[in-house]
Formats: sequence, C-alpha cells, structure tokens
Amino acid sequence: MIRFLTAGESHGEALTTIVEGFPTNLSIKKSYIDLHLKRRQMGYGRGGRMKIESDAAEILSGIRGGKTLGSPISLLIKNNDWKNWLDIMDVEKPYNSKSKVSIPRPGHADLVGISKYGFDDIRNSIERSSARETAARVAAGSIARKFLEEFGINVGSFIESIGGVYANKNFAKTLFQNKIRKDFNAWSLAKKADASNVRVLDNNHEQRIINKIKAAKKKGDTLGGTFIVVATGVPVGLGSFVHYDRRLDAAIAAAVMSINAVKGVEVGPGFAEAELYGSKVHDEIIKIGNKFTRKTNRAGGIEGGISTGLPIIVRAAMKPIATLMSPIESVDLSTMRKVDARRERSDFVAVPACAVIAESMLAWVIAEHLLIKFGGDSIEETKDNYNNYTKKLFGRINKNFKR
Amino acid sequence: MIRFLTAGESHGEALTTIVEGFPTNLSIKKSYIDLHLKRRQMGYGRGGRMKIESDAAEILSGIRGGKTLGSPISLLIKNNDWKNWLDIMDVEKPYNSKSKVSIPRPGHADLVGISKYGFDDIRNSIERSSARETAARVAAGSIARKFLEEFGINVGSFIESIGGVYANKNFAKTLFQNKIRKDFNAWSLAKKADASNVRVLDNNHEQRIINKIKAAKKKGDTLGGTFIVVATGVPVGLGSFVHYDRRLDAAIAAAVMSINAVKGVEVGPGFAEAELYGSKVHDEIIKIGNKFTRKTNRAGGIEGGISTGLPIIVRAAMKPIATLMSPIESVDLSTMRKVDARRERSDFVAVPACAVIAESMLAWVIAEHLLIKFGGDSIEETKDNYNNYTKKLFGRINKNFKR
Amino acid sequence: MIRFLTAGESHGEALTTIVEGFPTNLSIKKSYIDLHLKRRQMGYGRGGRMKIESDAAEILSGIRGGKTLGSPISLLIKNNDWKNWLDIMDVEKPYNSKSKVSIPRPGHADLVGISKYGFDDIRNSIERSSARETAARVAAGSIARKFLEEFGINVGSFIESIGGVYANKNFAKTLFQNKIRKDFNAWSLAKKADASNVRVLDNNHEQRIINKIKAAKKKGDTLGGTFIVVATGVPVGLGSFVHYDRRLDAAIAAAVMSINAVKGVEVGPGFAEAELYGSKVHDEIIKIGNKFTRKTNRAGGIEGGISTGLPIIVRAAMKPIATLMSPIESVDLSTMRKVDARRERSDFVAVPACAVIAESMLAWVIAEHLLIKFGGDSIEETKDNYNNYTKKLFGRINKNFKR
Amino acid sequence: MIRFLTAGESHGEALTTIVEGFPTNLSIKKSYIDLHLKRRQMGYGRGGRMKIESDAAEILSGIRGGKTLGSPISLLIKNNDWKNWLDIMDVEKPYNSKSKVSIPRPGHADLVGISKYGFDDIRNSIERSSARETAARVAAGSIARKFLEEFGINVGSFIESIGGVYANKNFAKTLFQNKIRKDFNAWSLAKKADASNVRVLDNNHEQRIINKIKAAKKKGDTLGGTFIVVATGVPVGLGSFVHYDRRLDAAIAAAVMSINAVKGVEVGPGFAEAELYGSKVHDEIIKIGNKFTRKTNRAGGIEGGISTGLPIIVRAAMKPIATLMSPIESVDLSTMRKVDARRERSDFVAVPACAVIAESMLAWVIAEHLLIKFGGDSIEETKDNYNNYTKKLFGRINKNFKR
Repeated sequence: MIRFLTAGESHGEALTTIVEGFPTNLSIKKSYIDLHLKRRQMGYGRGGRMKIESDAAEILSGIRGGKTLGSPISLLIKNNDWKNWLDIMDVEKPYNSKSKVSIPRPGHADLVGISKYGFDDIRNSIERSSARETAARVAAGSIARKFLEEFGINVGSFIESIGGVYANKNFAKTLFQNKIRKDFNAWSLAKKADASNVRVLDNNHEQRIINKIKAAKKKGDTLGGTFIVVATGVPVGLGSFVHYDRRLDAAIAAAVMSINAVKGVEVGPGFAEAELYGSKVHDEIIKIGNKFTRKTNRAGGIEGGISTGLPIIVRAAMKPIATLMSPIESVDLSTMRKVDARRERSDFVAVPACAVIAESMLAWVIAEHLLIKFGGDSIEETKDNYNNYTKKLFGRINKNFKR
Repeated sequence: MIRFLTAGESHGEALTTIVEGFPTNLSIKKSYIDLHLKRRQMGYGRGGRMKIESDAAEILSGIRGGKTLGSPISLLIKNNDWKNWLDIMDVEKPYNSKSKVSIPRPGHADLVGISKYGFDDIRNSIERSSARETAARVAAGSIARKFLEEFGINVGSFIESIGGVYANKNFAKTLFQNKIRKDFNAWSLAKKADASNVRVLDNNHEQRIINKIKAAKKKGDTLGGTFIVVATGVPVGLGSFVHYDRRLDAAIAAAVMSINAVKGVEVGPGFAEAELYGSKVHDEIIKIGNKFTRKTNRAGGIEGGISTGLPIIVRAAMKPIATLMSPIESVDLSTMRKVDARRERSDFVAVPACAVIAESMLAWVIAEHLLIKFGGDSIEETKDNYNNYTKKLFGRINKNFKR
Repeated sequence: MIRFLTAGESHGEALTTIVEGFPTNLSIKKSYIDLHLKRRQMGYGRGGRMKIESDAAEILSGIRGGKTLGSPISLLIKNNDWKNWLDIMDVEKPYNSKSKVSIPRPGHADLVGISKYGFDDIRNSIERSSARETAARVAAGSIARKFLEEFGINVGSFIESIGGVYANKNFAKTLFQNKIRKDFNAWSLAKKADASNVRVLDNNHEQRIINKIKAAKKKGDTLGGTFIVVATGVPVGLGSFVHYDRRLDAAIAAAVMSINAVKGVEVGPGFAEAELYGSKVHDEIIKIGNKFTRKTNRAGGIEGGISTGLPIIVRAAMKPIATLMSPIESVDLSTMRKVDARRERSDFVAVPACAVIAESMLAWVIAEHLLIKFGGDSIEETKDNYNNYTKKLFGRINKNFKR
Repeated sequence: MIRFLTAGESHGEALTTIVEGFPTNLSIKKSYIDLHLKRRQMGYGRGGRMKIESDAAEILSGIRGGKTLGSPISLLIKNNDWKNWLDIMDVEKPYNSKSKVSIPRPGHADLVGISKYGFDDIRNSIERSSARETAARVAAGSIARKFLEEFGINVGSFIESIGGVYANKNFAKTLFQNKIRKDFNAWSLAKKADASNVRVLDNNHEQRIINKIKAAKKKGDTLGGTFIVVATGVPVGLGSFVHYDRRLDAAIAAAVMSINAVKGVEVGPGFAEAELYGSKVHDEIIKIGNKFTRKTNRAGGIEGGISTGLPIIVRAAMKPIATLMSPIESVDLSTMRKVDARRERSDFVAVPACAVIAESMLAWVIAEHLLIKFGGDSIEETKDNYNNYTKKLFGRINKNFKR
C-alpha cells in the first residue's frame, strides 16, 4: 500500500507532500523530481504565475545517500509568490476585511466552497481549489514513476486538441492499432511532446493551436482541450475483476478525473467504440513466441479491470480555464447584487500541464497496483517477485492447460 | 463511512452482498430492492440467462420490523441457473478436466484472469468477471437510493445511443441548459425510460434502435452504447477540493468506470466542452430568492469536486458485449494453436441494464458523501443535521459576507 | 489487501461473512471451517444457546473444486434458534410493543446502543452487540489460518485464568524464555487446550477452575479470565515502524481488543516488564548457524512493530459476562424508575471461546501483513515470493554488512 | 474522516506532518501546538538529545488568520541536531561505509529493520524507528485536542509507576469509582502531572521514583513504567458494536500500542477485573435528572465498543528503554561474531513523554470518532450537529420507550 497527502495553499509559504509506502533502496535524485516539476510549468498560454515560480523540491526525509529508506518521503516546494501575499495569507494574523473576495467566479469552486465550509472570504476557497496543488502531486508522482522505471514501465503524454483544434491523430491510431514499434516507450513520447510549446507530437499543427490560443487571449476568453496519457511496459495482471474497487480502470478514472478541470476520461477510444459492432472493437488474441499479445489495442491496455500487457492508453478532457477576462455573470455576496464575475491573474490554457499531471496520477495508480501484486520491502525484493512472475508466466499457462 | 462487499460466481449458488454503515430507522422493504433488481434484468437484446433468472433478494440481517438496525445488511440473491451447473461449480468436488475452458475470448477477462491468477480453467476467470455480479451491486445500491430518498434525492438514467443509433438528444440538452421543470426528479425520468424496451425517453427512436440490435443479432455480432445517469435533489456541498481523493467527480468516475464494459465517463458534456471557449462553458451564477443557482448546468452539477446543488449528470460509454457468435481470432491454450474464439450464451446488448447499474453506483457515491458531510447514526439524526445545514445556508453566507 | 465484513443478528436467520482478497488455488474444505466453529462453542460454563446451536458454514462462493478462486468467499452460518424468534425478529413485520426490552443491563451495550442509535427497543442493541457475531469472525479467520498453514504458520491459544484462579504458569514462562521445543507449533498447543473443558494446558488445575465456575453459577454471578494466544512460524519482517499504523503490534491490539468483553491486551509480558530493568527485559541476539535468534522472547515476538521470527505471544483479559442472574441496579426506560437489571439466558463464563476467537483475529492480522509483504495472486506466487525472501535473508545481510 | 501522515528521520533535517480532514474555522495557534511539543520533552531521566532540541512547529499550510481552512495542515519541526549529522544523513551523497552501524541492539528495531528492508547500515533502521517521530504525532494530536476542546472534551495523563515504583493509586481508584468532582477535566489533571518532574500526581512519591531512576542510571540500565490517560467530556455514543473495526476501544488499543515501546493497553482496570465476579465489575445504571450515568466507571468509559459518557480511562505499559549502557549480548553483522550490544546516547526513562504521546493518540481517536458521528465541514456545523444530538438525547429515549 502506498499513499500520499499533499498540503499547501496557492499563495501560502509552501506546498508539502508526504509519500509513504515505497520500498527501500530505490535511487532517487532531487533533479529527477525537479525535472517533472519543470515539465508541469511549461506550455504556451500560461499566466503570470508561472513566470514567478520555478518549482523545485526539497527532500526533507525518506531518502538517504540517494536511496529510499522505506520511511515517508517529505517534499517541500516553496511558493516564490508567497512574499507578495504575506499580509493576506498570514497564518495567525486575522485577514483584513478589505482584502476579502466576495464575487464567486463561475466554473470555480468559489461558491460551492464558501457554501460547504462556512467561509467569510472566497479567498479561503480559492487557495486550495487552485491547481497550484498539482505541483505537489507531480512531486509525489515522480517517486512513483522512478519506481516504475525499475520495471521498464514508462509514462508519457501528449496533447490531442486545444479549443477544438486537433493535432494529427495518426499516432493515437497507431497506438490503438497496436502498430507501435516494439521498443517504443512512453517516456520518449513525452520527451517528443515536451519539445513542442503545446506538447503536440506533430509540429505542423503546433502553430494552428497557438493561433487558437492567441485568439482566445484576444477575446479575454479561455480554452480547454483533450490529451492522451500512455503507460508502456506494464505487465499483464495489474488490477482485478474480483471486486469492483480493485479494477485498474476504475482507479485510473478516479485519479485522472480528480485533476482540476478534468471532466471526462476514457480508457481506449471509449465513446467512439460504443458506436461500433463488437467485432470491430475487441482485440484478437495471438501468440508470438512464448507471449500472448493482441492484434490491436482498442481496449487501451485493460480488459476486465486487469492490465493486458499492452500500453495503457487514457484519454481525458479538460474544460476551459474558469477565470475569464471577458464578463460573465455572478453575484456579489457582500451586496447580493448581480455583477460581472471577478477577473484574476490566470492561465488562458493549461492543457499541456494537465497532461503532465495526468502522467503523475497514472504513474501513481500503476505503482500502487504493482506493489499490491508483487509486494516487497526493498526494490530488490519487489524485483525478484516481479521477475519470478513474469518469467514463469507462459510456462505456467502451458502446464495448466496442456491436455 | 459506508461500504459494501459483494460475493458470488455467475453460476454459483447465490450472490451475496453485505452493506454496512447506514443509519438506523431507515424503512426498507424487500419489494423495493426487488424492483431495482428487476429493472436491471430488462432491455431488448438480452440473452437466455435473463429468461432463467428472476432476481429477488432475501434479507438475512440488518433490518427488523421494516427498519434498518445500523448493523450490516446481508442480502442473498439465488442463482436459478445454478441447478444446471451443480457438477461444474461444486464447491468441494474437483472439476472434470473435460469441462475445462481453454479458449480465451477477446474483450473478456479470460486471458488476463488466468495469467494473473494461475488458473487451470478459464471458467475460473469467467465466473467472477461476469456482469452477473452487478445484481449484487444493484441490491446494495438500492439501500443507498432508499436512504437518499429521505433527503429528496433521486437517481435515474436513460439510454442515449446503442450501436451508434442515437435517441433524441433534446432532453439531455435541457438538462445541461438547466431548463428542466422545477419539480423534476430523476426517478420519474427513470420510470419513463423503463417504459421503453431499450430505455430511451422518446418512443420515436425506440424502433430504430431495436432494428439496429436485430441487425447485430443476425450478424452474430454485438453492440454497446452510451447512457446518461442523473441525480436530482443533491444539496450543495458534497465532495471537496481539499484533497484529490475527496472529489465527488473522481469518486463517481471510479464507480461508473468500475461497471463491466464501461470504457468512458463524463461529468457534464466533458469531451464536447473541451472544444469550446470558457465563456460558452461556465455556468453563470444567479440568485433567485434566497438561493443561488446557475443559468445553465454545463458543469453537470459539480464544480471543484463539490456538488453545486444542480442535477448531477454523468454520461458513460459501454463497449459492445465481448462474446460474439461471429468468428474472432484467439488461441486454444490446450494446444497453443490459433482458433476461433469460443461462443457462449450471452446478451447481444446490455446498455439498458448497464445504466441501471450506474444508477446504483451513483446512488452509492452520493450516499457515501452525504453521510461524510452530515454524519448521524439514525435517520432522524442525519436529517436533523441535513436540515440544519440547508436551512442556515443562505443566512450564513449573507452574514459572513455583509459589509 | 484482505478484508472481511460480517453480518447477522444473534437471533436472526443467519450470520454471513464475506472474505475478500486471498490468493487463488488455496485448498479449503468446509470441514476445516466447521472445526473451528465447533471449537468456539466449547467450554464449561456456556449457557443454553450453545445447546441449541451447532454451527456450520455453508460456502456460497469463492471456492470451486476445493480451491479458492480469488473472488470473495461468502460463508453462511444459520441460527438454529431463529425459529424460536420468528415473530420478534421478522424482517418486515413491525415488532410487538409488548415484546420490547426496556431495562438496560450494566456491562452490555444496551444503554449506549439505544442512546447512539435512537432505538425504541433495547433488543435492537442486543442483537448485534451479542458475541454471537464472533462465529462469523471465526469463519473468516479460518480462511486466514488455512492460508497461514501454507507457510508453516500456526495459531493457538490456552486459558491462563478464570475468575482469578490461575492454571499452571510454567508453559507461558517457557514461551517467554524461548525454551520451547524447536518443532513446537501453536496448533498442537491449541489441540492440547481443546482437550480440556476450560482449555487449560495442565489438567491438574482444570478442576479448581471448574469449581470456581460452579460457585459463580450458584451465586447467579459470572466470571471472566485471561488467556494467551500464540502464533508460531511467523517469519521475521511482518509489520513496520515506518508509520504508526503499519505496526504489527498495533494491529494485533486492535484485533484482540475488538472482541466482545476484552478489556486488556499485552504483547509479551507487557505490564510485568514495565516494572523491570531494561537488562532483564530485552532479548539478547544470537546467531545459530545461518539464522539470528534471541536467547529469550520477552518481546513476545515483536520489536519495533515488526515480527522477529520468534513466536508471537499475546495475552488478553476478558471481563466477566455482563448478564447476571443476581440483582444489579438499572433503570426501566418505560417508567424511568429504578429496577433490577434484566436477566436473560446467557453464558456464565466464555473465556475458552474468547481465546478461540482471538486465535482467529490474530490469524487474520498475520495473514494481512504477510500478504502486504509478499503479495501474490495465487498461492504458488505468494509462496515463491515468501521463499525467495526467506532463502536470501541471511546471505543478503552477510553481503550487505561484510567489510 | 481525518488522517495524518508523519515523516522525518531522527537526525534528518526535519519532521513533517500533514493533518487532513478537520473542519474549517477552528482557531489554532502555533503556541498551542508548541506547548504540547514542549510537554513531550519533559521528564527526569531524558538523555542528551532533549538538551539539543527545543521543538516548535512551523505551520506551512491549512491555517489562515488563525483559523483552519479545511485544507491539509502541514507542520514542520526542525531537528536542531541535524547540523551535527549533515555528513551521515545527507540526502544524496552516499554515506561513508566507516560510519555504518553493524551491531543491532536488542529491544530495538535494528535487526528486524535490516532483515525486512535489505539495508546495509543499521542507521537506516534506527532513524525512523526512533521515538523522535512521536514529536510529529504530538503536533498532529494537538490539532485533534484543540478540536475536542470545542466540545468540552479534554485529554490528560499521569504516571502510575516507573521501574516498579508506584505513585499513589488513590486517584486512579477515584476514577474507576466515578467519584471525581463533577467539574473535573482531564486537562487540569495533565497540568497537575506536568508540575512533577516524573509527571506523578502526588509529590510524595516523586522522590522515590527519581531515586529509582538514579539507581538505574548508575547501573547503566534503563526503566519503563505504567501510565494512565484520561479523556473527559466525551459524549455517549462514539464508536460502535455494529462492526468489529468500528469499536472505540479497538481503535484506542491500536493507537496506544502503536507508540514506541508500549507493550500493554487496558481500558478500565482490564486485567484486574478479569479476576473478579461480574457483580463486582459492571457499572450499575442510574438516572440523575435527565441524564443516565453509572455508580462506578469500572468499564473505563466504554461499553460494547461505544463511549458511555463517563471519562475514558486507558492504562498502558511501556517497556524499559532499549539502549543500555550495561553490556548485553548481540552479534556484529560485519564479522558475524558475538559482541556487546552497541551503546548510544539515549534516555534512561521516557515514561512521562510516552504518556503525553498517548494523550495525543487518544485525542486523535476521539476526534476521529466524533467527526464520524457528527460530520460537519465547519466547526459551527459540527457543533450544531453535536448540540442537536446531546440536547435531544434524553427526550428521545423517553419518547421511544414510554408505554
């Protein structure tokens, strides 16, 4: 069992995360974590905040001499912007009523937050519902993805569309057709996307997307988009059908949907396949040498809640950023009168970041299920167990079924 | 905290579920549970099994004199078909090697199951990965939905499309436009859908869908589809943004994705909204009397992981049934040779049932979050707490923000 | 992760338990479960109920051909006494107000139950707070102990004292001195205790204890006692110090304290050792061949929350049965007047049963931690992982520390 | 649901804790947390470390303007001693093999730790199994106790014995006889104990205990002891008998047993009562005005796993400190030869600190169960629910049972 908690307000002193349950002797460097924190900050169309912050993690515990101790890993990400908010965000000093925010923004947690929590300042909703929290998730997820690399499992993502402008869909098709190169891994995919300002795989479409973002900026409007997250190298057998809350796809759906602004999740081309005949959807089973595989991977790597051994392919939809510069109607709670919703510094589009966060969440879920299946308290022990299973896999099937 | 476990093989003696954590003094009748079990069995295109079974729940514990005792509720659903499988499914007697299933069906958990679990008979995968288990979930969910009714919360569903043939999309639009009648409730919606053989709201499209199913049957092929599940009467404030695993939408995504054959989930029109400008997506906030509401409900009733008080609207995609009568390629594990995948008695389409199961899962998630927020050990106490919150809601906001 | 839920009222139709999470291919027979159910019913001083019941489990799911399927195991234990309570315990028919119980018994959950749950009949508290529920726990625990046997781990118990009359303490001393025979296992210990009417190891003391029970009966009074539960064959390394809720001793304390009427738990001679110097308490470390062991086992088999490889020794205190035939003061809630507490058919002493239940709970906790450490989805895989760890243990230490 | 994770090595940079799930608008000051951190550092017989450290918590998140935000509270406690260990404890730089610890100390997690986790340096076991971690628990617990104070619930502790030297037992008797003053609260009890160097209530015995500690020091030996933790003001109805893992006493047993070096836990005088007749143990029920109470409190405030409304009284045994200055046998893992166990700077006795930690854990468990019962997202809402329940309590019983 692995678990993590994150803490931290958007303009508070720091984000913290405690990551608990990984085996010992796993090599982790600060630079590895920082790399992924940096990846989360990229993307054309981000707001002013990303210029202020340069996220980096301090490792406060859980790692010694470059290796995990098995004890909880505590990571601290300081908020550079905090110094501009000292007065408003003071831990003990009562906040000035003049600084109070009273106009809830549609699409944000502003109104639901003050309703649920009995706040007297919308700031109290904003600070934690902000996607700044996801930096802590990426830090936590980087431990998971480093762990997965030990087993040849990689995670990556790329952008499919922003504001309805789609990049080339060919690669996604290749994935579902299971026609990717044998040595393909999802991290090389991610690196290719990282080279683009909007994290698309095909540069020809980058400019069209950037133009769309520019148009949105000009209108004072915002955009969302869709993206695909892929995990390669996942062994057959993670997750289960024996109980509904053990299904790998259910865990992935929760993890991805839990990311701020994500409103839809698919494993494989879910909604598209709902329109087809079964014979056009299910992946025929073949044996190549001593390994079973499929002609296609339209299942997105999961059948019956269990990983098939093929790449796991998740597609998600992110709604447009909720903070608009153009007017949209709301109510000022201090007067109870109709007003234009408040404007606040914000991103115009953050789909590239969202995809990196989704990588982190996917890595987490796979790491969790890998440890449930293989156990182990040191990386050596977990690997022994993993190797034992994978090496015996075909032989055992052969023996069990031979007549 | 509420929880449930289900047990039972598809052709075993019985399904069981234990439902734990609901408050005392909630009125529940067997007939109420059986009604929803019956609803799960409906729909044009079901296979022979549904003719054999007539699901009904025996209440073994947790209810006395018609009211919950707070103790675990144990429900037993007998499998009528068991008597035809006594030999194959005997608990103690070793199974005959001749009856062993050795050809995995694409799209099923057959191959992943025997790989993960070291089985020597695919039957051992089939029995629990079968959607027969969902009858136990519907039984568990019926406790949740009865509980929710005490708070004026209802759950319902309808079919949007089967095999790419869409029913009228007007009602869904009405939902997202928040133009439904004030006294609308999701159960009346469900009843309307139940009146149709394919659970669509508009009879004009029923025949087109049935024709599509007939065509599939003729080809020995199968179909999936899309459906919408709605909860009405949900108060503002369930779920949270304070930690990623407290988000209501994440819990819903997991619950719905955990249903057999579901491959995609949206809250609101998730993927469609990813193509639009923010100004066309976010729901403007208005005040009507002493209540905040929204001009539209494109968020599907959830913002920042918290219910907004508007209907919760979830859309899901179900892949086509995996058991095909037409040939599809697989490998016979007893010979390791290429063969046609095994045919087995099965449904041709089960989207209507899937939607009813999704109602149960949605009801469960909402009940869970309602009890987290309101606590209470008897239905009276939970209601007191609920009423206290909802009655004070506007006054508290008014007082907290008045300058 | 393994888990179980139990359900069932004391005089309801049946007890149910669903046990979830054990690996596949574990051999389990109904007779094995029934043996332990029978052991729970033994002991001099039990009341009339034990004459009515002859507990046996029906296996409704999770096992096929004598082996676990990995799917939830559902077990049903029918209450023979139910037929005498049909009217009072009917699931749907409102109960007769004349049959209502209104006088709470001190020491029972009668008063706290109706206070917390808003009941109008103390019967609603009695039925589930009754120790009848523990039959379901023993059934669940028997799956765990069968699983442990695959790894040479056994669980057993014996009675130390009843009503202040102590049996021979020599064997317990032998345990703490680590002077038991090398091939000793806890199940042989349990069998020896089972041969006694009060589950003591030394027949010479049996009669003195029975005499004490007779004296209590004569006075209309009841007795409690103390007992010791032992697990042998537990490998070094279960549990952890890395987080407080991963400690094996904490889990054991909760599991044993959760048994009805248990009020104290020790690992090793806890309270006695709190009076001694450290040098008289800590177990010196020695190496015998390629194995580390201790000169003594005063730690009761756990150091730093982790199993040491020596027998786990837990001692617990059970308070006297709360239902007394002699008068004790209470209040009649129907009149709010002072009355003698209600008498009801009951045991006079149940310490022998309590120890068997504690075996079940201890087995459960060890099985849980063994699966967390070793993972595995089939018994073969879990064993492979277990063997890999234990075989490499000494060599790894040797290699890691050699200078 | 509340939860917390702690992180931090004994000689690392800092301890961290993230506390999640408390309602909003709870007033918390840093000084309040620091007070309890300070209390944990007290007591005659502590070692050199306590002279180096002066624990204080930095609040990094979750609190703004002096009030909780509902978001995770992150607390940082710096280790002053870290600067003396920079080289040995560096996060990235490999540790010097010369500094490696190779002799496991009996009674510590040294040997089990390296066995389980595959470490090559016993330091890796020591750092996290050290009781230094409990400072983070006290910080977390201080949030819980501040929350409980809002409901008039207080937690306190005192030392009963150290090294077999018992302080006056009169007060404990008074507790069990339920003869304490009506306005008694556990915090005043704690303050009284805090005034003593060994946290006893009766100064007359202080010197005898200090003399015993001096004797131990002189011998190079260590001591343990017993202590009592009390919670007052707990309402009737926390915890439950409906499922074994909902019992309040089970949760308390786990929480207290999870503290380093604790080996025994009782609720009420558990082991002593196992020797008595039932009529001498169970607490007779009486009604005083519109309130039920008991003539005695020998149950320690819990019946059937549920709080009775009387003080909760927990007694625990702490084993002697495991690091001895006097020689005790072990094995040097670098040579595999018999040696004297390693000596290391350590406390001679830490029972007073242990009791303060137990207060924190007890406060946590009660807070957890209070929130499960009463729900609520702001302190105002939780209080409303609490008041509604307690005010209606007697009237509801009266109405439910009146004939």
